Amino acid sequence: MSADFLAALAALTDAAGVLTGSAMDGYLLDQRRRYQGKALAVVRPRTTAEVSATLALCHQHRIPVVPQGGNTSLCGAATPDDSGRAIVLSLSRMTGIEQLDPDNNTITVAAGSTLAAVQQAARAAGRLFPADWAAAASCQIGGALATNAGGINVLRYGNMRDLTLGLEVVLADGTVWNGLRGLRKDNTGYDLKQLFIGSEGTLGVITRAVLRLYPRPTAHATALVHVAHPRAALELLRGLQASVGDRITSFELISAPCMTLLARHCPQLPQPFQPAPEWMVLVELADGGDSDALTERLVEALVTLGFEDALLAQNPSQSAAFWALRESIPEAQRLEGVSIKHDISVPISSIPDFLDECGAALQAAYPNILIIAFGHLGDGNLHYNLFLPDHSNAVYAEEERINAIVYAQVARRQGSFSAEHGVGQLKRHLLARYRDPVEIALMRQLKQALDPQNLLNPCKVLP
Amino acid sequence: MSADFLAALAALTDAAGVLTGSAMDGYLLDQRRRYQGKALAVVRPRTTAEVSATLALCHQHRIPVVPQGGNTSLCGAATPDDSGRAIVLSLSRMTGIEQLDPDNNTITVAAGSTLAAVQQAARAAGRLFPADWAAAASCQIGGALATNAGGINVLRYGNMRDLTLGLEVVLADGTVWNGLRGLRKDNTGYDLKQLFIGSEGTLGVITRAVLRLYPRPTAHATALVHVAHPRAALELLRGLQASVGDRITSFELISAPCMTLLARHCPQLPQPFQPAPEWMVLVELADGGDSDALTERLVEALVTLGFEDALLAQNPSQSAAFWALRESIPEAQRLEGVSIKHDISVPISSIPDFLDECGAALQAAYPNILIIAFGHLGDGNLHYNLFLPDHSNAVYAEEERINAIVYAQVARRQGSFSAEHGVGQLKRHLLARYRDPVEIALMRQLKQALDPQNLLNPCKVLP
Repeated sequence: MSADFLAALAALTDAAGVLTGSAMDGYLLDQRRRYQGKALAVVRPRTTAEVSATLALCHQHRIPVVPQGGNTSLCGAATPDDSGRAIVLSLSRMTGIEQLDPDNNTITVAAGSTLAAVQQAARAAGRLFPADWAAAASCQIGGALATNAGGINVLRYGNMRDLTLGLEVVLADGTVWNGLRGLRKDNTGYDLKQLFIGSEGTLGVITRAVLRLYPRPTAHATALVHVAHPRAALELLRGLQASVGDRITSFELISAPCMTLLARHCPQLPQPFQPAPEWMVLVELADGGDSDALTERLVEALVTLGFEDALLAQNPSQSAAFWALRESIPEAQRLEGVSIKHDISVPISSIPDFLDECGAALQAAYPNILIIAFGHLGDGNLHYNLFLPDHSNAVYAEEERINAIVYAQVARRQGSFSAEHGVGQLKRHLLARYRDPVEIALMRQLKQALDPQNLLNPCKVLP
Repeated sequence: MSADFLAALAALTDAAGVLTGSAMDGYLLDQRRRYQGKALAVVRPRTTAEVSATLALCHQHRIPVVPQGGNTSLCGAATPDDSGRAIVLSLSRMTGIEQLDPDNNTITVAAGSTLAAVQQAARAAGRLFPADWAAAASCQIGGALATNAGGINVLRYGNMRDLTLGLEVVLADGTVWNGLRGLRKDNTGYDLKQLFIGSEGTLGVITRAVLRLYPRPTAHATALVHVAHPRAALELLRGLQASVGDRITSFELISAPCMTLLARHCPQLPQPFQPAPEWMVLVELADGGDSDALTERLVEALVTLGFEDALLAQNPSQSAAFWALRESIPEAQRLEGVSIKHDISVPISSIPDFLDECGAALQAAYPNILIIAFGHLGDGNLHYNLFLPDHSNAVYAEEERINAIVYAQVARRQGSFSAEHGVGQLKRHLLARYRDPVEIALMRQLKQALDPQNLLNPCKVLP
């Protein structure tokens, strides 16, 4: 049977379109090396028609399909299980900017385009595609949409869902839905694209998208601001929002232990404050006009609000140096050893209490725990990563107990155990534990309606 | 049977909770007086539990349910058919601001709260709830969410979908889904709230919502700008966006015939330009800081961009006078007579061509047609309303032919026949005509999954 299927598959695309054997290796291991799967084949279609034919064939043969973009998921969403029954459907050959409409501020792209390619195309047209995160050069738009990815500019521009106007999606049986509209307002029935965004390939395969562009800011201002406590950071955020509003594009909290890891593992990065304050915030503003005026305005606001212990970037390279600190934290963590990572969100007003109380609860259970807390305070989203003393993967033995402490603190505040990284395989069991059974039942109804044979990314998301 | 049902219904709420006979009149006629329905009863629950009990009872007896908010739908979405089999479920007694979290910038409200009440609560807390349109004082949040309503600030703040973080919804069988989270980022499975927003009560009954608040702008600037053509208006929009970015909250196009109707029916409103230019734009900016500085910045931008024939509001009452012109157009139209109305959207870049070519096509078919075009150019959304010479309801005889001309021009540009008013009863047949059969099939699958007995607002939205 599988030989027949593979022969039929090979007939659907070109010679480079079907990989088997060791050629599949890079597609079967997830980014964090926590999941190693097996597959019948990796299929790499070139067009929507080839995706459609592949899904129709898989539907006919009841072969599961694991869609994969840049394989940068942090939750194992794009890695097949080890049954070897599924194919991996890689969108990586479906690249290209198909249309850019500067007056409509939209860009139409194929799902396999990298985020960096879309950013670059927007830049070349004097526009901004604001989604941005560390994997920009390798992640793909289809995967970013399937995960509803976030990143460093969500505060101002929203996540991938907010940046999407239209989609083309191939459904479980190979039917193509063309919803590639570039409209800001369209109330003609159910907004179907919302179903597919964030569903991690379990309801359909996104093949193209119409994304929103923005005017390209000409002015930037960057500051590292010492704050006494996350509560002060929140005051600063609300004060800045009152005075400079949406010019705030990023508002990132950084704790002292992050700076310690950076000093140890990235000594080439200059430490901005000596000694490192217990808490600081990286603030980025963007606007029209010029950077000097915007920086001046930020200085005035900081002084007015009483946050005078701050470093202001005087030029783009200083700004880049501040950002290098923030963006090197994950790498410094990796070099430090193995940690239990969390990507949580709570109402922004609850962030200070969460940090106090979750920290205290963890220290009560593990007196020598190292807490690396940083991230998107302006979105209520923290990366909250925990090392036990030997910094080895012995920490995994405590993973369940650590998670129970952290997620209980999140759940008390009606927060989320996955703010921007999705569910994938890693967090399926958490969905059952922390989401209402009514929600799980509704999700199952949707899955049943759109993929009754459970062929699209099975064993992902739903518990 | 219906006596049993009514007795059971009466037991679910208080004496004022079930209306029959002529007490129902106001609930059975739609806002535009195009639809007159009948009902078994009007039920007015006070709590989510009462909504749940009502829906469970209707589910048991297979009684259709027509949810109704402020009854301000422009498409007959909240009016029952004339079979008299359904109940109208009015949310109007479920009012109240339940929580306002200024640091999280969220407000939790019951579905029957008016938009104006939510705006007022936000204002009292020094925040802005930015949704705004003519029916603010009478429309209800539940209906606004069910319609994904838009209004005058969409350009800057988005429509109701964009302003919503969480929902509580009662499902067809009475099950309550509590999704009242106030998170900016939450990627834990399918984003269920998106299903219900914009589904016009056909998939569930929205009972509560967590909505986004914004910092309250302290500075406003308002201008009426003469533009040679909608193409020049588009240049102005892109020029302003490059220089003042998101400070633009509204960008409304007004054509000369609108001003003629205003002069005739609202003579108390001063005409800003004499004679009225063929096209003008009402621009509103908002920001922190003070209004004089913002107005100065708008003047500079207009001069730089070459739009010097402009009137700048010097104070709030002048601004209100400019806005009174824009907001009185619908009333002036009503006083003029009967027109065929359209609420269309196209890519913003296509607006100038649409106006040229649709106007020409209509004039070819009806040499004396009067075209009243105005609206949210910045969103690609126009209100495009047509009078035949006698301005009577004789125009309805031509409605189908007129619509065919307009919607063909919309469809050529991948536009929408309902940008912000929804589908209701009025536009169901258009869904079948202008949306892809794959989309209709997907919508039916969702309806079947969530409301298999077709009890929730039947004969609405889906063709």
